[in-house]
Amino acid sequence: MHDSTIAPAETAAAIQQIETLDDIRRILAALPGPDETAAAAAAAREPQLTKPEGALGRLEEISAWLCRWQGRHPPRMEKPQACVFAGNHGVAALGVSAFPPSVTEQMVANFEAGGAAINQLCRSVGASLSVHALELDRPTRDFTTAPAMDDEECAQAIALGIAAVNEDSDVVCPGEMGIGNTTAASAICHALFGRTAGEWTGPGTGVVSDALRLKADVVARGVACHAGEITDGLDTLRRLGGRELAAIAGLVIGARIKRVPVLLDGFICTAAAATLAKTTQGALDHCMMAHVSAEPAHRHLAAELGKRPLFDLGLRLGEGTGAVLAVPILKGAVACHTGMATFADAGVSEKAG
Amino acid sequence: MHDSTIAPAETAAAIQQIETLDDIRRILAALPGPDETAAAAAAAREPQLTKPEGALGRLEEISAWLCRWQGRHPPRMEKPQACVFAGNHGVAALGVSAFPPSVTEQMVANFEAGGAAINQLCRSVGASLSVHALELDRPTRDFTTAPAMDDEECAQAIALGIAAVNEDSDVVCPGEMGIGNTTAASAICHALFGRTAGEWTGPGTGVVSDALRLKADVVARGVACHAGEITDGLDTLRRLGGRELAAIAGLVIGARIKRVPVLLDGFICTAAAATLAKTTQGALDHCMMAHVSAEPAHRHLAAELGKRPLFDLGLRLGEGTGAVLAVPILKGAVACHTGMATFADAGVSEKAG
Repeated sequence: MHDSTIAPAETAAAIQQIETLDDIRRILAALPGPDETAAAAAAAREPQLTKPEGALGRLEEISAWLCRWQGRHPPRMEKPQACVFAGNHGVAALGVSAFPPSVTEQMVANFEAGGAAINQLCRSVGASLSVHALELDRPTRDFTTAPAMDDEECAQAIALGIAAVNEDSDVVCPGEMGIGNTTAASAICHALFGRTAGEWTGPGTGVVSDALRLKADVVARGVACHAGEITDGLDTLRRLGGRELAAIAGLVIGARIKRVPVLLDGFICTAAAATLAKTTQGALDHCMMAHVSAEPAHRHLAAELGKRPLFDLGLRLGEGTGAVLAVPILKGAVACHTGMATFADAGVSEKAG
Repeated sequence: MHDSTIAPAETAAAIQQIETLDDIRRILAALPGPDETAAAAAAAREPQLTKPEGALGRLEEISAWLCRWQGRHPPRMEKPQACVFAGNHGVAALGVSAFPPSVTEQMVANFEAGGAAINQLCRSVGASLSVHALELDRPTRDFTTAPAMDDEECAQAIALGIAAVNEDSDVVCPGEMGIGNTTAASAICHALFGRTAGEWTGPGTGVVSDALRLKADVVARGVACHAGEITDGLDTLRRLGGRELAAIAGLVIGARIKRVPVLLDGFICTAAAATLAKTTQGALDHCMMAHVSAEPAHRHLAAELGKRPLFDLGLRLGEGTGAVLAVPILKGAVACHTGMATFADAGVSEKAG
């Protein structure tokens, strides 16, 4: 039940040959569109189910959204996938985090040993988890003095993210780990959406008072250093981002091509994805925001992207934790949509009038 | 690890002998308190786990709350229980619902056949489900002219709810079905908390314009009919409620005594529970609001009770659907609290300074 906007065969070939950001731009310009036939099938079934019309609220929206971007009706939620990318940042040396940069690698070991929050949540909701450590011994450049990444380096991290999506996943949850990466995310948002550096800068892992002012200053200086030269969203990602942010952007692209809807996690994840929306309109139409995090700028970012998060539980951990915690809501939506009896089946009277 | 405020042995005996609402009042006056030792053990473990302090937001609050009211550390979330009560209402004959009263019984059959939303959600999250149809062929009296229930009749429905809680449940989710029961819930809230009848009256299953004005008028007349005579929250429940609301109040009492935390569902469920809070201070301390429903008055009620719902997904179905949908969030909280590595275990550096 795919409609005519499915990804052209050339896209698969193009993915194999990614070398530069221009290759990514060409892929973005040819992204597959929604399957409105599948979404219409979901909308047609909904009022037949034994409940007052609209009574399942956003669960009904979720069912239609899954159909639209999975390209099938009924929707499916058997194989949720979580994918965590880790990277190190030149700006971490400027003292923008409450933790030392060595923690990135230590946390990767913790992920691999099964001891982190994301491991427990993936097990709890039945999601697969893969962890990708991206050249941790080679931090990106300090973006207050130079672009964080070369064009090819950024394109390579994006390509890795594209390849990381499993073809048979029903939803994918991007996650990240990288000491210093809220600073990178804040700089990206300041460059993409304006406002002040302070509005985009928050405590991250727990930075307060003087250190928080320093962090906002690093964000402002970073954006000022590149201001006249930024060409588009992908160029913003290259200059101010990091490898794990580029890989998340790639995961979002790969998911669209493979017809896998995306649950966006927290501030860093959403900032990485936002670079795609600023490069190609509609590039995030297949993405839902799982939650709004306690990092204050995440709320601004949701507003800029016109996305409404599913919940607000005050999370501010990253790793994909908020996205994975939303998986059971999607499972519930699919269970209701596919499993409920219709008024006719159950012999239940419909609304009078 | 129970502390001294555990329910006295007399309570168990008292439950066996419930005949009148005064028996319920005596049980409410002797409710067991929190286990602060267990909650303190949770609070002591939290900062050792491999995450920035507080980064799991409300998941950390949930872990401590479960310990406090389960009376144990670590908390457990293996056996969630859902319990749906159905009743019929005299006021349904006044035209306050979009559906005919026969739908209550038809939906009970749908629950028993596994075709309703609550069946799909219980299966999806791994919760047990029991359904209790309460004398559907004998609706309560029209509360605009007489008390909905006798004292003994109300006490009997509460006793049934108390008995419905399984001793080994880790959380219990009350649910309801009853054509006309948003009208009863609105009348209860108007009597308990004042404001105007219109502020407590909403569309329910889909009542609009003239029918909605009629519904608000029924609420106002119902409360006016009893205004001078209401003695406390339980008496409000008896005069304006229904058997399924009384059973939910009983479930909340039984859960407290058996050390099972409660996830409150939507407007009707919360209104039933509110009668206990107005009878005995702190009677809902072991209850968390799973969600805020689309029924507008549910938001006022959350504010009156000082409860912060876990999410807002625009649900307005009842049946316990919102409560059951919150179970995986509790499972996630317990999985993180019990399964995560500590900084020491994982060799991860703690926050500098």
